[in-house]
Amino acid sequence: MLGQMMRQELTISSLITHAARYHADTQVVSVETDGSVRRTSWGQTELNARKLASALENRGIQMGDRVATIAWNNQRHLEIYFGAAGAGMVCHTINPRLFPEQLVYIINHAEDRVLFLDRTFLPLAAKLGAQLKTVKHIVLMGPRDDEAAQMVPGLLFYDELIEEGSDAYGWPHVDENSPSSLCYTSGTTGNPKGVLYTHRSTVLHSLGGNQPDTLNISARDCVMPVVPMFHVNAWGVPYMAPAAGCKLVLPGPNLDGDSLVKLIDDEQVTLALGVPTIWMGLLQALKASGSRADSLTRTVIGGSACPPSMIQSFREDYGVEVMHAWGMTETSPLGTLNTLLNKHDALPQDEQLKIREGQGRPPFGVELRIIDDEGHVLPNDGETQGELQIRGHWIVDTYFKVEKSALTMDGWFDTGDVATIEPNGFMIIRDRSKDIIKSGGEWISTVELENIAIAHPYVANAAAIAARHEKWDERPVLVALLHDGASVSEDELIAFYDGKIASWQVPDKVIFVDALPIGGTGKVLKNKLREQFGEVLINAVQA
Amino acid sequence: MLGQMMRQELTISSLITHAARYHADTQVVSVETDGSVRRTSWGQTELNARKLASALENRGIQMGDRVATIAWNNQRHLEIYFGAAGAGMVCHTINPRLFPEQLVYIINHAEDRVLFLDRTFLPLAAKLGAQLKTVKHIVLMGPRDDEAAQMVPGLLFYDELIEEGSDAYGWPHVDENSPSSLCYTSGTTGNPKGVLYTHRSTVLHSLGGNQPDTLNISARDCVMPVVPMFHVNAWGVPYMAPAAGCKLVLPGPNLDGDSLVKLIDDEQVTLALGVPTIWMGLLQALKASGSRADSLTRTVIGGSACPPSMIQSFREDYGVEVMHAWGMTETSPLGTLNTLLNKHDALPQDEQLKIREGQGRPPFGVELRIIDDEGHVLPNDGETQGELQIRGHWIVDTYFKVEKSALTMDGWFDTGDVATIEPNGFMIIRDRSKDIIKSGGEWISTVELENIAIAHPYVANAAAIAARHEKWDERPVLVALLHDGASVSEDELIAFYDGKIASWQVPDKVIFVDALPIGGTGKVLKNKLREQFGEVLINAVQA
Repeated sequence: MLGQMMRQELTISSLITHAARYHADTQVVSVETDGSVRRTSWGQTELNARKLASALENRGIQMGDRVATIAWNNQRHLEIYFGAAGAGMVCHTINPRLFPEQLVYIINHAEDRVLFLDRTFLPLAAKLGAQLKTVKHIVLMGPRDDEAAQMVPGLLFYDELIEEGSDAYGWPHVDENSPSSLCYTSGTTGNPKGVLYTHRSTVLHSLGGNQPDTLNISARDCVMPVVPMFHVNAWGVPYMAPAAGCKLVLPGPNLDGDSLVKLIDDEQVTLALGVPTIWMGLLQALKASGSRADSLTRTVIGGSACPPSMIQSFREDYGVEVMHAWGMTETSPLGTLNTLLNKHDALPQDEQLKIREGQGRPPFGVELRIIDDEGHVLPNDGETQGELQIRGHWIVDTYFKVEKSALTMDGWFDTGDVATIEPNGFMIIRDRSKDIIKSGGEWISTVELENIAIAHPYVANAAAIAARHEKWDERPVLVALLHDGASVSEDELIAFYDGKIASWQVPDKVIFVDALPIGGTGKVLKNKLREQFGEVLINAVQA
Repeated sequence: MLGQMMRQELTISSLITHAARYHADTQVVSVETDGSVRRTSWGQTELNARKLASALENRGIQMGDRVATIAWNNQRHLEIYFGAAGAGMVCHTINPRLFPEQLVYIINHAEDRVLFLDRTFLPLAAKLGAQLKTVKHIVLMGPRDDEAAQMVPGLLFYDELIEEGSDAYGWPHVDENSPSSLCYTSGTTGNPKGVLYTHRSTVLHSLGGNQPDTLNISARDCVMPVVPMFHVNAWGVPYMAPAAGCKLVLPGPNLDGDSLVKLIDDEQVTLALGVPTIWMGLLQALKASGSRADSLTRTVIGGSACPPSMIQSFREDYGVEVMHAWGMTETSPLGTLNTLLNKHDALPQDEQLKIREGQGRPPFGVELRIIDDEGHVLPNDGETQGELQIRGHWIVDTYFKVEKSALTMDGWFDTGDVATIEPNGFMIIRDRSKDIIKSGGEWISTVELENIAIAHPYVANAAAIAARHEKWDERPVLVALLHDGASVSEDELIAFYDGKIASWQVPDKVIFVDALPIGGTGKVLKNKLREQFGEVLINAVQA
């Protein structure tokens, strides 16, 4: 027996149609790649998206075909998001910071038919051109540009494509379970893997992500995703914004603090989203400029753990609420977001701040659990650490072109993180599961050991790693990089841990190095350090 | 080609599971039918719902079976909502204010297998008993009660059912397109018609209805649905609350102003929802009690048009934002809700108030249009009036057990209202389409004519109707009821319209009556008046 309600597909086109129908006059502001500011609207965005879809269809691009972008956050990129997916094609956003060989691998693996490029990335395309086996059209995101045309044979121009397109084009029927966009993870080992989002997963992510305790975007907001549109679809903001009908500010290529402060003040941004590094620059620029960022009420910070001092500075100096969030390419990305509960109001400020430092709690639509090495589900008591697993409407099922499920036998996605969860779902990432130290059956967080070491005035950077140990299986070893000219002994540094953690968690050894190996995304490559120093405690015993 | 994300069903059980998983300790407060206050939690609600489901299954109730309730807003009713639908049964909420023959018709038409009753409605059940052909079990919502047992042979007791149920019961897999609940419309003509909501429509209604510009319910809220749970599922609030994890207050049978003021203050209610009549009592009680209703930040008013003075009083005297809303049984019910846009901030207060008096704009998930008599779509210009049609994820498709679609040829539901829509979707109901006066091709709103008449100090109540006219097809006639002892002439009353509306809209005639025919829901029965006075202008010409 079936119910008797209308059954419409949950599609990307319905998001932009809603915005065009009821928020046609609401502004979309875009900083173009040449630095100029372009001011359009949801009405114009929807029209251009339909014209683009029409032009792509006329050039033989079909439903299911992948349409790739290497681009900043700007108006044309937004139109491609909706034009491609609205027409049933797949919008494949590519991270330009990947190595050229990774770019070639990804584009060929995705079998991209069209490649849209910002002017910035034209030299890259010119260089890769011959290796891209499936790309039929390369399109420069701008008006005709003769210099560019000489660099890439057969180059098309975005603004001419829009001219070609028909404004009578209507969005086709699309099954909500068909793919809408594609993002590759930049794993540290092996080839990148693609996550193929569906229309349904994206719309549900928008609705779930836009609840009052999640991103809470209203038509009264002015939202600026500083997080790139090639990074998990700018955390889904380009889809949530038209569902809410808010003003959207796309900040283009210049993400330095001064540019962001100016945009926030000029456009009266109320919500900005980005990673800690960028926000550090923003805070410095705010201090230097004397701007109060009065319009800004809240920021969402994700991508990596946010330093407590940043949360405090935004809150106390600028009255801006910092919402810490956690997610991955595989989770669309919203897994958790940190908004406090009523009962937390009664806590002292420092305890509230402590909760804010965690990654927050899951919205309706996703569920979290932690498990032990044998796969037993562990309690949500805020103390017990376990491997973090997630399931829900916007979580990956299988990777693109991979047969094997990406999930556990019972249907959960293993995040590769180690976390604690307290009874209301507030989750704290304790470590990556491949990094955590398993000492005599107990787990020691390398993140915690590093945070303490870095707080030492002489330590510039540090990495804690598991070293093999005959009795305890693994014991912590700290690899430390001192500030130029600083000097501190191993014993002094080990003594620095006294009273800060349990004594059995204190590193057995400190190794001083002149440099730490850093990967493409700016993180210390602990696997290299484990290769180098993983046997250091065994040798010590033998010596 | 399909995308590769997890595909989970959108089910009612997932709403309560979310609340139990992450908001187990959040309170659910219920005023019981005997006036006592019961305090439980989302954790307890979910547990009881599973035990109830288990007990119902053990007694032979199966997926798809209808489980009826005649009950106030209270804890047990909430558990039945989730227990029945969670198990794949259909929760059929019945309006106790219907005439007994309508109740019998509805219960037999729905083929209800179980009937849950609050103590209040036990005499009713005792009376109807023999006529209910499909009902296998009647359950009193409370503990064992020997007096009650004697009134209804074979009566079961809710609290004993819960005792019977297993706490190991797990929610079964349910297709999201299967039915979850059933509500009958109380149409003024013909038999009531059933709307069979699906799990999917209900969950999407919860997510769409809970966006920041709609009900905006966060875990920090304390929400009190005063609108009955037998009235379009209390506007969906019992489903939105667990998705958000907020505190929920169910006010029981006593909806007088004093009881509501006490509940608001005792429980620190932040959002209350109800109809204008109830809110009038609340305002009076606030004034009398001297309470400031400090916790209350907003109310949602729907069901019928809200008087402007009420919006103003809530806002200016109590700092409470009034959000006007519109919907129907067929629309789950959220069609529109009134939250202003940024650009309205620049308007003078009286113009903002004017916008607030309208029914508001549609959230993502539903679309509105207006059409003329020939079915042409009319512009959203805020001026043009047309028949209001709606479509979306939570709109009816066909009525229960009716073959014929409830929709237009192109898939829209005709609301029977006449409305205007302005470019941002702000909709104003102008009239019922069966009431509106069509004079020489132009439409005249009877609501507007009545509002003016009622503003006259001597007029107690008034109804405007269409009277047949030889030249103009129809012309307005006002049927007026004066205050006791008051006296005003037809010419004076007609002159009262001068300058308030266009002269061609002024009624041709005023008929004074000693009483207006009022229907079961408190509305003037204009069809009766049309029968009586519809030819009065023809006769006048002939005389």
